[in-house]
Amino acid sequence: MSAPKKVVLAYSGGLDTSIILKWLQSEYGCEVVTFTADLGQGEELEPAREKALMLGIKEENIYIEDLREEFVRDFVFPMFRANAVYEGLYLLGTSIARPLISKRLIEIAEATGADAVAHGATGKGNDQVRFELSAYALNPDIRVIAPWREWDLTSRTRLIDFAEKNQIPIAKDKRGEAPFSVDANLLHTSSEGKVLEDPAEAAPDYVYQRTVNPEDAPNEPEFIEITFEKGDAVAINGEAMSPATVLTKLNELGGKHGIGRLDFVENRFVGMKSRGIYETPGGTVLLEAHRGIEQITLDSGAGHLKDSIMPRYAELIYNGFWFSPEREMLQALIDKSQDFVTGTVRLKLYKGSATTVGRWSDYSLYSEAHVTFEEDAGAYDQKDAAGFIKLNALRLRLLGMRRNRVK
Amino acid sequence: MSAPKKVVLAYSGGLDTSIILKWLQSEYGCEVVTFTADLGQGEELEPAREKALMLGIKEENIYIEDLREEFVRDFVFPMFRANAVYEGLYLLGTSIARPLISKRLIEIAEATGADAVAHGATGKGNDQVRFELSAYALNPDIRVIAPWREWDLTSRTRLIDFAEKNQIPIAKDKRGEAPFSVDANLLHTSSEGKVLEDPAEAAPDYVYQRTVNPEDAPNEPEFIEITFEKGDAVAINGEAMSPATVLTKLNELGGKHGIGRLDFVENRFVGMKSRGIYETPGGTVLLEAHRGIEQITLDSGAGHLKDSIMPRYAELIYNGFWFSPEREMLQALIDKSQDFVTGTVRLKLYKGSATTVGRWSDYSLYSEAHVTFEEDAGAYDQKDAAGFIKLNALRLRLLGMRRNRVK
Amino acid sequence: MSAPKKVVLAYSGGLDTSIILKWLQSEYGCEVVTFTADLGQGEELEPAREKALMLGIKEENIYIEDLREEFVRDFVFPMFRANAVYEGLYLLGTSIARPLISKRLIEIAEATGADAVAHGATGKGNDQVRFELSAYALNPDIRVIAPWREWDLTSRTRLIDFAEKNQIPIAKDKRGEAPFSVDANLLHTSSEGKVLEDPAEAAPDYVYQRTVNPEDAPNEPEFIEITFEKGDAVAINGEAMSPATVLTKLNELGGKHGIGRLDFVENRFVGMKSRGIYETPGGTVLLEAHRGIEQITLDSGAGHLKDSIMPRYAELIYNGFWFSPEREMLQALIDKSQDFVTGTVRLKLYKGSATTVGRWSDYSLYSEAHVTFEEDAGAYDQKDAAGFIKLNALRLRLLGMRRNRVK
Amino acid sequence: MSAPKKVVLAYSGGLDTSIILKWLQSEYGCEVVTFTADLGQGEELEPAREKALMLGIKEENIYIEDLREEFVRDFVFPMFRANAVYEGLYLLGTSIARPLISKRLIEIAEATGADAVAHGATGKGNDQVRFELSAYALNPDIRVIAPWREWDLTSRTRLIDFAEKNQIPIAKDKRGEAPFSVDANLLHTSSEGKVLEDPAEAAPDYVYQRTVNPEDAPNEPEFIEITFEKGDAVAINGEAMSPATVLTKLNELGGKHGIGRLDFVENRFVGMKSRGIYETPGGTVLLEAHRGIEQITLDSGAGHLKDSIMPRYAELIYNGFWFSPEREMLQALIDKSQDFVTGTVRLKLYKGSATTVGRWSDYSLYSEAHVTFEEDAGAYDQKDAAGFIKLNALRLRLLGMRRNRVK
Repeated sequence: MSAPKKVVLAYSGGLDTSIILKWLQSEYGCEVVTFTADLGQGEELEPAREKALMLGIKEENIYIEDLREEFVRDFVFPMFRANAVYEGLYLLGTSIARPLISKRLIEIAEATGADAVAHGATGKGNDQVRFELSAYALNPDIRVIAPWREWDLTSRTRLIDFAEKNQIPIAKDKRGEAPFSVDANLLHTSSEGKVLEDPAEAAPDYVYQRTVNPEDAPNEPEFIEITFEKGDAVAINGEAMSPATVLTKLNELGGKHGIGRLDFVENRFVGMKSRGIYETPGGTVLLEAHRGIEQITLDSGAGHLKDSIMPRYAELIYNGFWFSPEREMLQALIDKSQDFVTGTVRLKLYKGSATTVGRWSDYSLYSEAHVTFEEDAGAYDQKDAAGFIKLNALRLRLLGMRRNRVK
Repeated sequence: MSAPKKVVLAYSGGLDTSIILKWLQSEYGCEVVTFTADLGQGEELEPAREKALMLGIKEENIYIEDLREEFVRDFVFPMFRANAVYEGLYLLGTSIARPLISKRLIEIAEATGADAVAHGATGKGNDQVRFELSAYALNPDIRVIAPWREWDLTSRTRLIDFAEKNQIPIAKDKRGEAPFSVDANLLHTSSEGKVLEDPAEAAPDYVYQRTVNPEDAPNEPEFIEITFEKGDAVAINGEAMSPATVLTKLNELGGKHGIGRLDFVENRFVGMKSRGIYETPGGTVLLEAHRGIEQITLDSGAGHLKDSIMPRYAELIYNGFWFSPEREMLQALIDKSQDFVTGTVRLKLYKGSATTVGRWSDYSLYSEAHVTFEEDAGAYDQKDAAGFIKLNALRLRLLGMRRNRVK
Repeated sequence: MSAPKKVVLAYSGGLDTSIILKWLQSEYGCEVVTFTADLGQGEELEPAREKALMLGIKEENIYIEDLREEFVRDFVFPMFRANAVYEGLYLLGTSIARPLISKRLIEIAEATGADAVAHGATGKGNDQVRFELSAYALNPDIRVIAPWREWDLTSRTRLIDFAEKNQIPIAKDKRGEAPFSVDANLLHTSSEGKVLEDPAEAAPDYVYQRTVNPEDAPNEPEFIEITFEKGDAVAINGEAMSPATVLTKLNELGGKHGIGRLDFVENRFVGMKSRGIYETPGGTVLLEAHRGIEQITLDSGAGHLKDSIMPRYAELIYNGFWFSPEREMLQALIDKSQDFVTGTVRLKLYKGSATTVGRWSDYSLYSEAHVTFEEDAGAYDQKDAAGFIKLNALRLRLLGMRRNRVK
Repeated sequence: MSAPKKVVLAYSGGLDTSIILKWLQSEYGCEVVTFTADLGQGEELEPAREKALMLGIKEENIYIEDLREEFVRDFVFPMFRANAVYEGLYLLGTSIARPLISKRLIEIAEATGADAVAHGATGKGNDQVRFELSAYALNPDIRVIAPWREWDLTSRTRLIDFAEKNQIPIAKDKRGEAPFSVDANLLHTSSEGKVLEDPAEAAPDYVYQRTVNPEDAPNEPEFIEITFEKGDAVAINGEAMSPATVLTKLNELGGKHGIGRLDFVENRFVGMKSRGIYETPGGTVLLEAHRGIEQITLDSGAGHLKDSIMPRYAELIYNGFWFSPEREMLQALIDKSQDFVTGTVRLKLYKGSATTVGRWSDYSLYSEAHVTFEEDAGAYDQKDAAGFIKLNALRLRLLGMRRNRVK
């Protein structure tokens, strides 16, 4: 295969992707375009520009973008409409960010006439799959370069050597191995590897970055109200907010109360198990609230159907199939259910927990008239239940008759 | 339809089922057999015997049984193997107790030659369905009497009148209406109705009965270890225990730390929504722990299949179909998955939360050799990922090519 | 409950619904509006008008409508996009017609100020459920009258007596009991009851009404081409046709070749089994063709998702939940998949079978370049398969290692 | 990676696997063990022994086995209990044979101390995946050699050259390219490639090998009876038969009547579409019959659950995951359902179709007493249906009330 001519690199400005940048130049002799996105990871982006310039990237080949609103509006919120959790517990914070990055990589490749994209994910993880499936789905002719699967810089020493030989500045604390690896965006921080590799051992406190230890959270609960429109959060405590602002605010609230920590062993798509520490403060609050508003605005038909397809939907996102027909089909199903998921939920935040304590909506299906223990003025005829049960029981009785007959 | 001759009544010894007892005698002129079970609801059973005798039940027609071990071993534990939650959150504490009561009602009916069974559930709820579907499944020829759907004692006043006319003793606090209705067993306490009927209003503190308010829970976390064998909890902190003892102990621990409260609006099988306050302290801890041990002992194939059928399994239990072929088929699937779900989970209990902080097992599938960021000595060839991604991407690329071709 | 004032009756003009018409008038003293629809059952509608007039219905209260296009376009075709079959084999011909009839009943009730609707379905079947669930979904305040569940005309003799007393003309062949009961519309004819009640006995030849016996079908196969656009059939042999015309033409072709007969024992929603003989000539051809065009225009992600939800979708339609959120959600998912289901299928019709023998499409995903046994010019790198297999196998190998370790 | 020392080769005795045999010897210098199985493909096995000997394989390294009974009993029948079809139509005839071959390869490897197994499947197909996933699942340490992915014998000319250089005898008709490729076993014959690569073109007649053209089938239908016990066919026309004998006999009957031809475009697991011609005469008859007996012996709960998981089960088998926890879990579910699937089905075989015309069983759930149009002597109270419908409708009415309220 001939060498790529121009490559768009997902560039953080950090040591690893700087090494990749140089390696692409030297290995392939190709032009490099850098793409650095703010997805809410909480880092300044301008240093990435300076570093790219310093590494010889042309001004017009440096793309730096704030994607926070698009991230929450078009990726996080649609996913939360599904109450998606992977393997019962994981809120998919890393998984949901990758398709957006790939989408922009491909768009920038098209805008700059690049014939390849490159990313800094390793060959053991899920992220390579997510980046590449998205890229191929959006541009079937694109070439994807995954240096970690190709090069021979397989130890810290070799990486540092390469950096030094190529005049890549090395922050002091990057010379040694990090005690664990971190990914962050507006939805979550994940930590894994090294000190976390034994799933029998509790994660050390210093791993946690955006939530306080519940023991250190305020001793008084805080009550908040989240308002939804068609399944998306649009206001906190009555104050209307943009999607990214909602999530930012919920992160602040959740983090303060120690909410959203998860110590988790999961099944990677590539076949092995890994252990991660996830912090999803705002997302954890949001999921609880979304479930709360659905409780009164979805009927059982819609709700149970959503519940039954959720694991598959979550698995698709986890595995990197955001841009696939089946994810889009499931999204159409989910979105269809959210037309009346509008209303407000009141939550209690306290020392690690977010719990619904009240919910109301103009679209509520809850009928006190029907459920009341008091006289219901004819709303419901209890005698109907007899027929309902009799017909539901009929096949069970026929089974019982067979059992009696043949025994 | 002719009158039943002998009826086995699910009898708590309380006012309502005492009224039913008398009503059955007077309405149908039938012999009544009482069945009172200890499922861990926390009430003395002997007073029920005395009361039954006083109401004219013959000694040999009074059945009082401690079913706690059977309840946990044959109902609660099988259900927890599935990580069953209804509508995302409810641990099915009431639902899972009903089939066992029906099973014993039918067995006692057969033992005593009774031609009917009776229960005290109302015509608006799920319990009537659960009792009756189970009864019909176990004995297709049985007759089920549900006085609340039949009689005209539709107000508190009429009930009290009937009780007085029939010399049924009335405890002082039972003359007025209770502010809410309670069901309890070893797995949970549920409260609903009256003061809880507005889902916008937080439940008052006095509703909670077996958990402390998280604010009142100890300020220090407590760490415990739960050991599983083939999916069932068999020891706490290294001490082997029977099923009911495990759950009793976990209730104590969970209740002390304010764990397992749920304020919930659910869809009843009979078509309306209701709001319940559930306290499932031990069950909440157990679910977290079971998920924790499955994380390292189930592979993704088994785990994801379980996740995908769980909502249906939970719905079946909620709707009263415990004794149905489809529940038994799903149980066979679930049980098959638990052969190696053996090991120990360490949990942190603190102010409302139970969180896994470590897990280990001789049957662990977690392979540090494969996942490590360090040199893995050939356990995993990162280059394999390229082919894996390429073939997973192929159909997405073919879709992209079509899109390009037709646009 | 007070009597209804005005009732819209689903009126065929036949003896049974004429009796119902009179019974409604005499039982409730209410005004009756008749609604007679052409759904392709192959009967003249004008006699129904005359009969209604004769039975005293006011001219303006007689609604007679040709709904064939709406039936196929808005009900049959959406259902066929899903390849829906109930219990593996039944094409849902009766089930899919009921919601449309209910929809018009409700609309006419609103237009005429009627407070009730009535239908002629019995208390043992599915149709009562389908009519009534649809009616209640579309108008929660409507009253539904099901005379067969209410009246005492429980034998043929009583019905004939009632007819005679009420001057309802009785066709000669209607005096005795029909040997079986028939329902028909543009999609199918179903026959059940009486001579068909023993599922061990083959259905007699005279039961079949719209298909020839395959033995009597032409000895030469006939080849036809069906063209689809976005999942719906739009042309036969290159000739563009409206939805109802397509189905009419396919019925003619299928019927001539003895295609679409089904001898079936099914599970009714009301809990019992029944045996039916279904003839769905056009639908059977259409299903085969739709599967054929999907084979080249859907990828596996879309196709397998459709397959997995199909049984639930079919069950919803069978059970009468067409107008439910979950059916609409599934429809959104299905419709989303059909954007490129455009192309042509060639079928062979011969003595009871319709089989796809060719299919082509501008939107085909079939890539000869990839699949060819010949040199593929780099379209596919066989070495990728090694990595693909290795990673798919990883969890299986880890399971094997555990097995080896613990045995 | 060092060379394997001893390799067990799935050896047909044909030219291709003979070339592989020699290539393994020359490429790796390893000892080769040949394994040739009779799975009902209809070829003599003894010539494979002679050929192996001639190619230098030691007598004790030649394994030739008749696996037909094991194949049908332990693979085909369990699969048919599920009514498994892939993508709506394909009976999985190739897929289900691969795991058994792998199982024996691994067992022979263990018996002979071999460290590798080899197969003759290409890098584009599903079979490589099926062979290898099974092999790795059964022996995580085994090495699998897939020569077609490794060697440079990528054209017919090179293969023939290699054969000539290595004294491999070449049958005259094997010098040129075959017009299509064939796989066969007791369940089916599949043909694909070359002349079949254009899915728009009908397959030529000469492709079909085990079924007559329906036009050439007898002009008279033939009626047969198949008896099942616990879901498996055990007798034809009252004559008890072993599993392989049943299938052999059904193949003969089906083939004679032109039954079981399928022209199909499918999605391969490796991501591309392919077109195959499948002939599954006996299997097609068996599937129809199994559905027929299930119609009267399974209730809707069991049947619908089976239907809903079937696509996933079929996909697992197609993709090669027979030896996976999830397939075994689903099998446990399916097998659990078959306890009473015992009885007899009468079928009509005629010119391409097998259709059920009658079925009976001591375990039948069909209740004429319940379903009859005649007086049912109280078996079913039609009034129960009113309550059944009312409660099923309740949520739909609540949805309608909301719609009315908010519009």
